[in-house]
Amino acid sequence: MVAEFIFVGTELLLGNIVNTNGAYLARECAALGLSCYYQTVVGDNAGRLEAVLTQAMGRSDVVILSGGLGPTEDDLTKETAAKVCGRAMYLHEPSREMLKRFFALRGLELTENNWKQAMMPEGAIVLENENGTAPGVILETEKAKIILLPGPPNELCPLFEEKVAPYLAGLTEQVIYSRTVKLCGVGESKAETLIKDLIDAQTNPTLATYAKTGEVHIRLTASAPDQKSAEKLLEPLLGELERRFGKAVYAVREEITLEQAVVELLDRQGWTLTCAESCTGGLLSGRLVNVPGVSQVYREGFVTYSNKAKRKLLGVKKGTLKKYGAVSAETAEEMANGAARAAKADAAIAVTGVAGPGGGTEEKPVGLVYIGCCVNGKTTVKKYRFSGNRSKIRESAVSAALTLLRSCVMRQAGEV
Amino acid sequence: MVAEFIFVGTELLLGNIVNTNGAYLARECAALGLSCYYQTVVGDNAGRLEAVLTQAMGRSDVVILSGGLGPTEDDLTKETAAKVCGRAMYLHEPSREMLKRFFALRGLELTENNWKQAMMPEGAIVLENENGTAPGVILETEKAKIILLPGPPNELCPLFEEKVAPYLAGLTEQVIYSRTVKLCGVGESKAETLIKDLIDAQTNPTLATYAKTGEVHIRLTASAPDQKSAEKLLEPLLGELERRFGKAVYAVREEITLEQAVVELLDRQGWTLTCAESCTGGLLSGRLVNVPGVSQVYREGFVTYSNKAKRKLLGVKKGTLKKYGAVSAETAEEMANGAARAAKADAAIAVTGVAGPGGGTEEKPVGLVYIGCCVNGKTTVKKYRFSGNRSKIRESAVSAALTLLRSCVMRQAGEV
Repeated sequence: MVAEFIFVGTELLLGNIVNTNGAYLARECAALGLSCYYQTVVGDNAGRLEAVLTQAMGRSDVVILSGGLGPTEDDLTKETAAKVCGRAMYLHEPSREMLKRFFALRGLELTENNWKQAMMPEGAIVLENENGTAPGVILETEKAKIILLPGPPNELCPLFEEKVAPYLAGLTEQVIYSRTVKLCGVGESKAETLIKDLIDAQTNPTLATYAKTGEVHIRLTASAPDQKSAEKLLEPLLGELERRFGKAVYAVREEITLEQAVVELLDRQGWTLTCAESCTGGLLSGRLVNVPGVSQVYREGFVTYSNKAKRKLLGVKKGTLKKYGAVSAETAEEMANGAARAAKADAAIAVTGVAGPGGGTEEKPVGLVYIGCCVNGKTTVKKYRFSGNRSKIRESAVSAALTLLRSCVMRQAGEV
Repeated sequence: MVAEFIFVGTELLLGNIVNTNGAYLARECAALGLSCYYQTVVGDNAGRLEAVLTQAMGRSDVVILSGGLGPTEDDLTKETAAKVCGRAMYLHEPSREMLKRFFALRGLELTENNWKQAMMPEGAIVLENENGTAPGVILETEKAKIILLPGPPNELCPLFEEKVAPYLAGLTEQVIYSRTVKLCGVGESKAETLIKDLIDAQTNPTLATYAKTGEVHIRLTASAPDQKSAEKLLEPLLGELERRFGKAVYAVREEITLEQAVVELLDRQGWTLTCAESCTGGLLSGRLVNVPGVSQVYREGFVTYSNKAKRKLLGVKKGTLKKYGAVSAETAEEMANGAARAAKADAAIAVTGVAGPGGGTEEKPVGLVYIGCCVNGKTTVKKYRFSGNRSKIRESAVSAALTLLRSCVMRQAGEV
């Protein structure tokens, strides 16, 4: 079955917003086993939208449109789709009631044009939208199924997952089931080489690798008559990936983030963590604190950008800074040890480096970063050389710090 | 003149990557005064690409394609464009030399398929690409100008700015010139209301507002025979926006970020800054440290997630935490004052709040945040109520903290 997408909105044509719905719908539909050959962006213009929709209906079985379901004159996706399908519009009572409730709950006043959002094409399947005022719409025609969704991602994504995905799955009578295996500390090309035979031999399940900053994700997708059979198909491959990548795998049966994996690992040991950050300047702590419930593990951290702060807050020795410099293995080690001591934490991770654009020398170029990790009094220091701009170098350092921390904690905890 | 874009790549159709080139090219072409009505995404498939390109050439004056210029069999944008335009391919010597240099410089070995990237359609204008191995290509036909660009944004953007934009500007014989006025501490709808008359009356220059987290950007674009005349056209409008928005304007003649504006403001006064972060957990410091040269202003900061850390590192009183709680105006005030004292800084900004998803109560719901700002011993505390998920609430708090800090520093510095 072939699906295609039409994104409606002049703001997309002007580049005011990035079309993240494109990648989202593409991923979701691919996971459902649909083939997609075209995506089109078109403005809030009835004539051009009609032409694009008519063309899409001639070459695809499912056409998903997003955007243009708002209350203003500019919003004409629903009206245009109704016209193309030869359907009249009528006032859909349940949508009218929902609109009323939506506004009442928020103490807002309904204006005349809001009722437009309760008008529906005859025979449409209306999808209630809990996160906004524009319901989704499915129009079944002989040529194609047409699915209209609101443009804002926080409305489109839940509507798709809760209502459209089951509808599409019902059309194919197959369940598509995905799992993502996440790796840290291994590059994408190495990861691909290690599973080239699996990629070449793939049929069902399929697998694909995605490179992230400091990480590689491998998505496995199986197609089967029901979820249980799909899971059964995935199981051997999940086990095989775990065997091949060993401790580089940080998420396999749950979709957690790297910082979540690290926090959970520490939490299992009952260990606490602190950070001492120079070039990352708080980003590493900031990422750890994005884990809900991190307070069990993380209580305090230090941003020590100046040499003086490294001495005062972490007890780094003046002589060390003078002899080796702030960006050195020796300083990284003393930062980690000092942070653990100052915060009375079981584990401490310290980052110091040259993030650029200025400040690089031949001996210590932009991108040079040292990361020190102290776990239960045992300290490991690693040297890194990252590339990219200031922001990219700092992000890479954060990923590398989480990876090193995870491996040191696993070693100390005997979880290797 | 009408332009349209075709994005080539199966990775886009599968949703492996988000199409950021779409918004980029759209913005750039709009700024050049080109009208854009369509964008299409198509896979690495010769037949479908040919159909899409032929259709685009029939309805637009300029067709820009990105992607599919790599060395592998899959990459067929150049070959397909040559076929549609009836041009043969030949080996372009300068591109061959450039490829050789590119690989030699990096100590890499050229493989046979790399030479494919030096093959060009007869009569093409070849655009040297300094950031990769795929040159850009311009094909001028009677129907339309066809422009081929590599897909990676770090190659496409510089090529566009350095070579394609001047080429397109040459076609229109007009210069398009843009300036962005950036505001903080004022919502988008209020900003729009305040300039509705200017938006309604716009012809040349045009203006458009863009909402960012905690900020509003207003882009002004003028079209004129040369840059000097364009700048002259913009000048009165820039002045008018400064008058209307007053100190909410943080960038007008330079495209700086909010954190840059804050750091520069402090630097002008010779003042230093520190941060004390609870729910933002280092994100605020991390954002400030993204400013190159921040070391003049920012030396150290504190992540105090636990109550104990707030007491130990910042001297927040036990009684205050007990009586008012960690998320309170009183705690925010003591955090800011304590951070200034501990870091011996002229200014300190402190953030404490409920980022969720857990931990909210009726009295202190998820999204409640207090920000304290101490400048030269004078402390201001503000209460905020943000919405969204944990990550969005934390980002909003960072923006609000920068905005409050800027306004307090300006007041103390007499720069109001």
